[in-house]
Amino acid sequence: MTTFQAKLEQAVKKNNSLLCVGLDIDLAKIPHSLQEKDDAILAFNTQVIEATKDLVCAYKPNIAFYERYGILGLQSLIKTIELIHKYNIPVILDAKRGDIGNSSKAYAEAVFNVFKADAVTVSPYMGQDSLQPFLDFEDKGVFVLCLTSNKGANDFQTSIYKQVAEQVKGWGKNAGLVVGATKPEQLKEVREIAKDLYFLIPGIGAQGGDLAATLKASGEKSIINASRSIIYADDIRGEAKKLRDEINGYRNR
Amino acid sequence: MTTFQAKLEQAVKKNNSLLCVGLDIDLAKIPHSLQEKDDAILAFNTQVIEATKDLVCAYKPNIAFYERYGILGLQSLIKTIELIHKYNIPVILDAKRGDIGNSSKAYAEAVFNVFKADAVTVSPYMGQDSLQPFLDFEDKGVFVLCLTSNKGANDFQTSIYKQVAEQVKGWGKNAGLVVGATKPEQLKEVREIAKDLYFLIPGIGAQGGDLAATLKASGEKSIINASRSIIYADDIRGEAKKLRDEINGYRNR
Repeated sequence: MTTFQAKLEQAVKKNNSLLCVGLDIDLAKIPHSLQEKDDAILAFNTQVIEATKDLVCAYKPNIAFYERYGILGLQSLIKTIELIHKYNIPVILDAKRGDIGNSSKAYAEAVFNVFKADAVTVSPYMGQDSLQPFLDFEDKGVFVLCLTSNKGANDFQTSIYKQVAEQVKGWGKNAGLVVGATKPEQLKEVREIAKDLYFLIPGIGAQGGDLAATLKASGEKSIINASRSIIYADDIRGEAKKLRDEINGYRNR
Repeated sequence: MTTFQAKLEQAVKKNNSLLCVGLDIDLAKIPHSLQEKDDAILAFNTQVIEATKDLVCAYKPNIAFYERYGILGLQSLIKTIELIHKYNIPVILDAKRGDIGNSSKAYAEAVFNVFKADAVTVSPYMGQDSLQPFLDFEDKGVFVLCLTSNKGANDFQTSIYKQVAEQVKGWGKNAGLVVGATKPEQLKEVREIAKDLYFLIPGIGAQGGDLAATLKASGEKSIINASRSIIYADDIRGEAKKLRDEINGYRNR
């Protein structure tokens, strides 16, 4: 079976891209013509995917936005992921899950067997044993929250993010880190600790992270996510292409 | 509108109980006669609820176990919560959610508007702003992970659990803490920091926490959770009554 990493690297190469598009659905923001459709969420996501599938290395739906729409939202998420699989682009389910023992195993089964994601984001708060059931899916990717892009990252993460990076290095080949683009200096520190891990990097676009500094600090093993700034743009394809090319301008320097 | 706290205190008084029963469904463990039902999850939960509704102060379904069964599992969860509401017992949805800004708002809406829980568990890793959208539902309860009952709690939590307790105190009247029963000494420290907060305490029963030490350290503002040791017992009601009475034996000492 193709691993997440192999699938990712194939998409990076084929589409010459480190851009990941975040599928953060908001029915209030989608065009009126799509709002009338039977499955408006799937209709909108289809439009985004069709417009960008040769420009991205991954898609990242955040499950929160689908849960908000209840059972119908989650059904649309499953169908969206099915559609993406047709194009052989990896799906990172942004779920930030974290629990212990049996509960963690149940979450891992939900993410990989029910929603059929290729990778997932998880929270390290409960420690290594809480994430082992995800890591046990060896062909799937597991991105552990390390340093996030919000203000509240200063509340608790600053005390432990280096420790998280240090430990996650030893958690298996399929582990990666989530490191926000809003703090390039700390991103550089994390990269020095974890040279070989893939970083999933949110905070570009609407959140205002510095792309040049981010790429310089993080290097080629980066997945740069943008969500709202692309999917709610008037010209979705144009915006995605612009950002992909801008990222490429900073690669390998 | 009745707040979570008022509803909880009413149930504590009416049922003379600090016992919370965890509804951690596992289809492989339920009786064969129920497995054949159309909605086996709801049938099993109904049996547990009917057997214990005058013995508990709350129910705590962990959403992981429902997500694992996909759309059908989540539909059963919604129906289970509807049933519990009829008996005026508060529902704590164990979801351990945590995300930023819009995503966190979407999770809060899912938990309180879609699943209609009275309270939720959340993860503090991303800081105060990540949990504000939950806290903004002022009539709902928000239990923040502080010190958990698993081995991995030693990986990162030990560095920051006191800081978490200290900060959560200032996060509003509807905030509480999750503190495991497997570490009574640390539980005592957390109680000294956060005298007035409700503690949701897992780790009794299957996980082997010490009930006497736990109650002594935590006092009356405790919600003692047991899941598997009750719901998969041969005599569900008998086991719940025994634990409720045992807890009561250690109260107010």
